[in-house]
Amino acid sequence: MGEQGRSRVAEAPSRSLEVEGTLPTVRVRSPGWHPLIFKKMVIGPEPGPRPSDGDLVRVVDRDGVPLGFGLWNGKSQIPVRLIVRGERPPGSEFWEGRIDEAVSLRRETLGLDSVSDAYRLVHAEGDGLSGLVVDRFGEVLSAEVFSLGIYQRIGPLMDRLREKAGASAYRVHVDHRIAQAEEFSGRPVATEGAPEKVEIREHGVRYRVRFEGGHKTGFFCDQRDNRKELARYCQGRSVLDVCCYSGGFGLSALVNGGAKEVSAVDLDEKAVAMARENANLNQVRMNLVHADAFGYMRQMGVNRRRFGVVVLDPPKLIGSRREMDEGRKKYLDLNTLAMGLVEPGGLLLTCSCSGLLPVEEFSGILRSAGRRAGRSARLLAMTGAAPDHPVGLEAPEGAYLKAAWLVLGEESKRDQGEDS
Amino acid sequence: MGEQGRSRVAEAPSRSLEVEGTLPTVRVRSPGWHPLIFKKMVIGPEPGPRPSDGDLVRVVDRDGVPLGFGLWNGKSQIPVRLIVRGERPPGSEFWEGRIDEAVSLRRETLGLDSVSDAYRLVHAEGDGLSGLVVDRFGEVLSAEVFSLGIYQRIGPLMDRLREKAGASAYRVHVDHRIAQAEEFSGRPVATEGAPEKVEIREHGVRYRVRFEGGHKTGFFCDQRDNRKELARYCQGRSVLDVCCYSGGFGLSALVNGGAKEVSAVDLDEKAVAMARENANLNQVRMNLVHADAFGYMRQMGVNRRRFGVVVLDPPKLIGSRREMDEGRKKYLDLNTLAMGLVEPGGLLLTCSCSGLLPVEEFSGILRSAGRRAGRSARLLAMTGAAPDHPVGLEAPEGAYLKAAWLVLGEESKRDQGEDS
Repeated sequence: MGEQGRSRVAEAPSRSLEVEGTLPTVRVRSPGWHPLIFKKMVIGPEPGPRPSDGDLVRVVDRDGVPLGFGLWNGKSQIPVRLIVRGERPPGSEFWEGRIDEAVSLRRETLGLDSVSDAYRLVHAEGDGLSGLVVDRFGEVLSAEVFSLGIYQRIGPLMDRLREKAGASAYRVHVDHRIAQAEEFSGRPVATEGAPEKVEIREHGVRYRVRFEGGHKTGFFCDQRDNRKELARYCQGRSVLDVCCYSGGFGLSALVNGGAKEVSAVDLDEKAVAMARENANLNQVRMNLVHADAFGYMRQMGVNRRRFGVVVLDPPKLIGSRREMDEGRKKYLDLNTLAMGLVEPGGLLLTCSCSGLLPVEEFSGILRSAGRRAGRSARLLAMTGAAPDHPVGLEAPEGAYLKAAWLVLGEESKRDQGEDS
Repeated sequence: MGEQGRSRVAEAPSRSLEVEGTLPTVRVRSPGWHPLIFKKMVIGPEPGPRPSDGDLVRVVDRDGVPLGFGLWNGKSQIPVRLIVRGERPPGSEFWEGRIDEAVSLRRETLGLDSVSDAYRLVHAEGDGLSGLVVDRFGEVLSAEVFSLGIYQRIGPLMDRLREKAGASAYRVHVDHRIAQAEEFSGRPVATEGAPEKVEIREHGVRYRVRFEGGHKTGFFCDQRDNRKELARYCQGRSVLDVCCYSGGFGLSALVNGGAKEVSAVDLDEKAVAMARENANLNQVRMNLVHADAFGYMRQMGVNRRRFGVVVLDPPKLIGSRREMDEGRKKYLDLNTLAMGLVEPGGLLLTCSCSGLLPVEEFSGILRSAGRRAGRSARLLAMTGAAPDHPVGLEAPEGAYLKAAWLVLGEESKRDQGEDS
């Protein structure tokens, strides 16, 4: 499966997972139960051993009542990431247990090996491992690290993961903004000879995955179930895949769904090249367009082109609170355009991966888009990420992905432009 | 498929679907886009022909600007149910078009005939047919009517549906509270010789469905996809099905999921009898218990029984705003008990069909339940009703069903009883 290729190798930081000596204690203001404890909630280290950045610390509340244990980074906006509640400090057995549980969920409970060799193995807070995200792509594990404490221990963590997942290599990446914010080097790590690219297969569709861009490979595991479900709507239909990345929805429509034809659009030239490579790999023909989503859809509207199925899966349009208003407007405009391109009785699968946009707000935006487009729409389902992206009940913001399945009604010119 | 049985037959009200003469006009206050126009929004009939209850009326806003057409019932709390926007009055072609679209969604787009012969054919506002809900059970269509206007036209509507669905018989039921509120007889209607019971098959599981209780047969189509998905988690596991009705989740676990054993509990003796009949029909052994959910789960907790999978699907616990507080408390108590019965690493599928309970509130209740039960929990997915229950974007309250898929962590005695 793995293809040849050499990558820069750096030895993985290998801090022990054992509890070493007496743990420093950090006092915090009633943190609720959320695993992330922000700066303003931290009172500070207690007398006794001082914590160094990355240390495991005991956490107590303002009255000194023990809360649990976490990883410390005094330079971070999130100085404490709670790892476990209770009074028993987490040693190597604990960490390995968390990893084993995460792997077991994917491989045993969900049985993912039988449908794909690309899936998320560790989903941060959703697996009780705040600061760590790991995807498997065939024999390669691709990790993204969000905290110094995890980075210091990444060697033994990845070794355990590699063993349990039956993978041969791993790569570790730290986003430069994270490295800056958490003040550590964040240099990338890879096992010796880790491939630069692999080929994976999901529900019978083949994809090439390249690691040159770090953790973001252009292949998103979170849409696995939605890609599969889409195929059911595509038989004999013309499909438009807007913001197609490496082509997943379009390929699923062609290979598994029996689509008549697929047009796939992306603004990123690299994405279009990836999608083309994947179409070739699957020996299907996909009409690939390098274009801006707004401009392309507007033009199709002018041309009065209609599609039986439209998929709209834009990149994260709201990355911070500051971007809320502008992001909402972009979602509204994109969805208004997309609705206008769907045949009566056709399907629109429209997604938002902006965690800051609550699902009801997304529904509200779709309602407004329907009014503007002069189209009635029926929501068949609102789905999310595949279950290898679990969400901790105490960290609900982990449920970032929303995917609305809409059947569009007749076109009504009368309502065009209206809103209320 | 249909079994013999005679039922009371009454001729179906058969008002024409055509537009007859000059339509009365009703003026309303800016109703937004919601299809239900409540009493306080209605200004009243305009000069000209007076509307009789059940009539099709033209609807205009306070300034006389045409909004669309609806069905009138001056005695109802919802005097106008908007049927269509725009200026073209809906005749028989319109009504038949709506029905054809509804049938086509289930049979063509969703391809439901290949997985089940029980599904929802018409879902009120979700199919642009406010006031009408129709389920198919094999060759019988079972309708529930919520408005006088629909009741007056039920004959031609059901005839069209029967033709398009390829069904042989239909039954129409009006809840006595609706008949009272809308002030009409609401006497039940059935085609001659319509069977009293049928046998249906969903994803390979057989069920007997009886119509003696009106539209509520104890078989709920909305959980179809969730029943199927549950099977994936059941191999070799012990399963507890709390509030089992006619046994759907338990049967899916046994027949399709390879569960080791299933205990199914319901307070309704009739439900237990139905579930037993269905278990026999499928030649599987299900441990059926006639008991209260609270008492049974409490006892299992005392006995320290644990299950690999627990399903909790209580009846609607919040039927009105008045019942909010008490209902929330019941959901909290039930879920706390249920979480306590799940093995570490096991699954809890917990549902709420209370439309008044928003999904985030339901998540919040589950978070509190986890704290009380001393159990961490990871949400794999939050699903809803199957897509034959579409929701109009303008009538979002149609999305009543919430189903949370939770994997439970280790039991922690320390946190028991805590809440914050």
